[in-house]
Amino acid sequence: MTSKTPSFTATAASVDPAAIQPLPNSRKTYQTGSRPDLRVPFREISLADTPSQFGAEPNPSLSVYDTSGPYTDPTVQIDIRKGLPPLRQAWVAERGDTELMAGLNSQYGQVRQADPELDTLRFELKRQPRRSISGANVTQMHYARRGIITPEMEFVAIRENLRREQYIESLRASGPQGEEMARRMTKVHPGQSFGASLPTTVTPEFVRDEIARGRAILPANINHPETEPMIIGRNFLVKINANIGNSALGSTIGEEVEKMTWAIRWGADTIMDLSTGKNIHETREWIIRNSPVPVGTVPIYQALEKVGGIAEDLTWDIFRDTLIEQAEQGVDYFTIHAGVRLPFVPMTASRMTGIVSRGGSIMAKWCLAHHRESFLYERFEDICEIMKQYDVAFSLGDGLRPGSGYDANDQAQFAELRTLGELTQVAWKHDVQVMIEGPGHVPLHLIPENMQLQLEHCHEAPFYTLGPLATDIAPGYDHITSGLGAAMIAWQGTAMLCYVTPKEHLGLPNKKDVKDGIITYKIAAHAADLAKGHPSAAFRDNALSKARFEFRWDDQFNLGLDPDTAREFHDETLPKDSMKVAHFCSMCGPKFCSMKISQDVRDYAKANGLDEQSAVDLGMKEMSVQFVQQGSKLYQDA
Amino acid sequence: MTSKTPSFTATAASVDPAAIQPLPNSRKTYQTGSRPDLRVPFREISLADTPSQFGAEPNPSLSVYDTSGPYTDPTVQIDIRKGLPPLRQAWVAERGDTELMAGLNSQYGQVRQADPELDTLRFELKRQPRRSISGANVTQMHYARRGIITPEMEFVAIRENLRREQYIESLRASGPQGEEMARRMTKVHPGQSFGASLPTTVTPEFVRDEIARGRAILPANINHPETEPMIIGRNFLVKINANIGNSALGSTIGEEVEKMTWAIRWGADTIMDLSTGKNIHETREWIIRNSPVPVGTVPIYQALEKVGGIAEDLTWDIFRDTLIEQAEQGVDYFTIHAGVRLPFVPMTASRMTGIVSRGGSIMAKWCLAHHRESFLYERFEDICEIMKQYDVAFSLGDGLRPGSGYDANDQAQFAELRTLGELTQVAWKHDVQVMIEGPGHVPLHLIPENMQLQLEHCHEAPFYTLGPLATDIAPGYDHITSGLGAAMIAWQGTAMLCYVTPKEHLGLPNKKDVKDGIITYKIAAHAADLAKGHPSAAFRDNALSKARFEFRWDDQFNLGLDPDTAREFHDETLPKDSMKVAHFCSMCGPKFCSMKISQDVRDYAKANGLDEQSAVDLGMKEMSVQFVQQGSKLYQDA
Repeated sequence: MTSKTPSFTATAASVDPAAIQPLPNSRKTYQTGSRPDLRVPFREISLADTPSQFGAEPNPSLSVYDTSGPYTDPTVQIDIRKGLPPLRQAWVAERGDTELMAGLNSQYGQVRQADPELDTLRFELKRQPRRSISGANVTQMHYARRGIITPEMEFVAIRENLRREQYIESLRASGPQGEEMARRMTKVHPGQSFGASLPTTVTPEFVRDEIARGRAILPANINHPETEPMIIGRNFLVKINANIGNSALGSTIGEEVEKMTWAIRWGADTIMDLSTGKNIHETREWIIRNSPVPVGTVPIYQALEKVGGIAEDLTWDIFRDTLIEQAEQGVDYFTIHAGVRLPFVPMTASRMTGIVSRGGSIMAKWCLAHHRESFLYERFEDICEIMKQYDVAFSLGDGLRPGSGYDANDQAQFAELRTLGELTQVAWKHDVQVMIEGPGHVPLHLIPENMQLQLEHCHEAPFYTLGPLATDIAPGYDHITSGLGAAMIAWQGTAMLCYVTPKEHLGLPNKKDVKDGIITYKIAAHAADLAKGHPSAAFRDNALSKARFEFRWDDQFNLGLDPDTAREFHDETLPKDSMKVAHFCSMCGPKFCSMKISQDVRDYAKANGLDEQSAVDLGMKEMSVQFVQQGSKLYQDA
Repeated sequence: MTSKTPSFTATAASVDPAAIQPLPNSRKTYQTGSRPDLRVPFREISLADTPSQFGAEPNPSLSVYDTSGPYTDPTVQIDIRKGLPPLRQAWVAERGDTELMAGLNSQYGQVRQADPELDTLRFELKRQPRRSISGANVTQMHYARRGIITPEMEFVAIRENLRREQYIESLRASGPQGEEMARRMTKVHPGQSFGASLPTTVTPEFVRDEIARGRAILPANINHPETEPMIIGRNFLVKINANIGNSALGSTIGEEVEKMTWAIRWGADTIMDLSTGKNIHETREWIIRNSPVPVGTVPIYQALEKVGGIAEDLTWDIFRDTLIEQAEQGVDYFTIHAGVRLPFVPMTASRMTGIVSRGGSIMAKWCLAHHRESFLYERFEDICEIMKQYDVAFSLGDGLRPGSGYDANDQAQFAELRTLGELTQVAWKHDVQVMIEGPGHVPLHLIPENMQLQLEHCHEAPFYTLGPLATDIAPGYDHITSGLGAAMIAWQGTAMLCYVTPKEHLGLPNKKDVKDGIITYKIAAHAADLAKGHPSAAFRDNALSKARFEFRWDDQFNLGLDPDTAREFHDETLPKDSMKVAHFCSMCGPKFCSMKISQDVRDYAKANGLDEQSAVDLGMKEMSVQFVQQGSKLYQDA
């Protein structure tokens, strides 16, 4: 993508065909809530029956969490020039605490709006921006604390349950062995949750309570009604974020929208637009209008552009106008590096890799140049006042995160973390939602201290970490070096993981890199859900393992995170279609197969009413005779 | 590789050109031990000086562990038809406890030797096979227990130290700031070792003692003198194994040798030949003669071929002849599934995925069919008698390992583990070296129990695990699902990790898959070394991080596990050569750079004699004035 950068024009803008291909054997289903316009999307994967030699039984379809939005719904006509349907619009409006503005309120937004040279780039939004009526607070946290369960909260409750009850019911009803099948397919190893408490069934009230306590956030800007509500908190499924965004070195608006649709197809729960190049404002508009997942930004990046890249020239007024500009476009959370305080900056002087956060270094530069405390820190309450008018959540940035294992867990990092804890309480005083950003580069054994101090200093506000990278020696593979740390810290309580792509430290990710980063992070997040003992996470593992044992190749592929790659890898060695139903795999070949032997053992045990213990106790001589008489053979019939 | 399978002929056999390319900015160095023929190989990576704006200082070259053997030594003429130089031959011979055989002793070996149809395939070994003289025991463990430090032990001691002292000395001598530089570049975070004790300097005596205790093994068959000695134990660097081997579905001898040279180039410490197809014997000969790393096999695979794939027809005599056949070829360790006992087999009946180990399922079939206890278990002492005549180490196979998270840590798995513990003590009675194979598929939170029970039941014999896979839902990415578990279990004490490639469960790995699997496992092993607090592991991370901070792009690539991929990724976005020395990266572009700001902060602190704390204490007004006077600018000069 970055190699060639085709030009972009609004009138010709079209959806990436790859984003609207249906996933194999999958259909979009909706579970309706307490009102007809509350329809929660799932991807339902239908499965083949068990082959006769493994005991012919139906395998009920499994529904999985679906971040792909309307793109994978064949009944929806996608036109990115029009944007997605505003499904939350009515919910926001009927609360009666917001009003439509005559037009944009940010000076910058007005300037861009008026610039004819941007006509060919601009997304033509017919809708007016919305803001709380004077004195009102429209955050989900504010409603939660007043005991109100919003449609958004009910939506995420249904979504987090993964249609658990329906699946168990379909297993029970699947046949004479239904009860036994339900027992097996829903077996979950007791987890180790490090203090998280995952309910068997997530109720809307539980969601409300977690948001009210500040232990979870539901990012939902009133100007981004296109979002399908999701929740970030350690008592829910671990989420992942994918960063996109162009830079001075290129990629067009069209490519960024394409990366967004590609990212959500593979499982991004939120995306961050980190654009730093030209037309940031217009790029963002296109992304938000077409994004069914929350969108985060780092406003200081754009503010810096507005002052020609001179950090010292940043002012509160410019930053404030940028917050309003982006809040009116519908950005759901802002990364704000208000914890980079003047006294902390020199603490980084003796580091191996200094300050690696762009936002952090911008503010460090500003603080030193003016010898002033950060205006983000001093103006924090003013920022809260803006956030609560649109329900923009804070992602308090870790501007002093370590950029190498060498710098991990140092004085600068933890001084900032304590400050983020103070700011969390200030934001909560305003009922503004908060999550806390975390490292970075941290060896495995230093990860627990990060998680424990975050919980302690930040009062259980959701942790949102970048990796961390467990080692620095594998540029080109940092999706993996960081995936190791991500799985570990998510298991211990991190609520959302910011993905890292193979291009980290080296270049801008293309579509393949984005996909590699996302699949790696879906693996890390899911491994953490399993380890925490999420009541339904193992259902997918169990279903896939059963398909694997029964040589239901297509089911094995389709239950996986990336059916396309699994199928492609399989076909490299066993290209023939007949092989797709072959009762063997290329590792052992057709002649010998351990799965087949396992089935012999199972049949044998069944035939002799043999359970695990009785088998051990019983004298087995006579049985072995029967076994030989049954004369099961090793050769397979492909 | 698997797509096209060209024919193979011995006379035309040639080395894979990719295996003998020198790695960038690297040269093969040898550290000589107490005798001139004891030369320990390292890869020395030379580094550029620090650019002036970062304080112009020389960066001493760093030596890293090198598994690639003579292939990367330009002074060695590689001819795979002749095989590698037998560097250990003199050491073995001079111990005076072995004798050369007139010819092969295994019946099968003799048959193959006499078959004219194999002339075009056969490796022409001039050397005669060697065996202990009657009654002698030639295992490294036997020598160790008698207080003898062999050249092999001294070799690994030097190798494990990673030229630590030389590096520290070169840092000190690097300039006026040498002492400070040595302090920074060798900083290591105190580790969490879970009971492992990693010495700052590994002495030959320490190696001897660990081998004598059975806590480490040094696989070194007297018929594989081409090996460069290495050690496997939890008080040493974590090692990785790469599996190769053709199957009924193809790939030629030439391709397997090519996979071996490719695997050691990227860091495989040992390789296992799991061939199950035709010409296993000849394939193995080619691999061993050209392998500088220990080679492991699973003899039961070949024994099964000898009885036409009918497990029931396996006999002790056939298996025994296979052990001798392979021991005489020089196999360094045998995976033997002697823990799959008759009473354990029915314990797998209620599993989700039954028995997934091929060796385990072969023996399960045999046990049930004959209703006999496993002949591997009953003949275990006879097997030890063979092993000690050649110094073949046991890799006691986990034939009942779980094939899904569902089956993890179950009765069958741990019943077998206890049995492997019993067998370990039997082997030790014969001074035969032992490591224990482990799972498999295990969710993260169930990994500690595996490690703890292995240490307890198997008396600290080295653990050698396959992953484990932390989740089952990502076919096509199982190098990553297993890399997560591998890093975790290695941190907790596993001594060697068996890699998993992206093709696991789907097909046979090609060269790209082999490399992806190896790099992923090098990352897992290194992350574990760092977490355990290995005294030298962080040196490479520190050197690379410093190169990254100073924009020494080539050094950053070359210090990484895969310089080729890192360089290629970088060049995708910043193709121009000039960019390779650019003081910015494509993520932020030339305009703004956080590294540059960090350097400003550092210069500023230096200029004002500012350390971390004084900075906090001092009033900084005057300093900020100086800072502005210094007028450092944000714009970069590329």
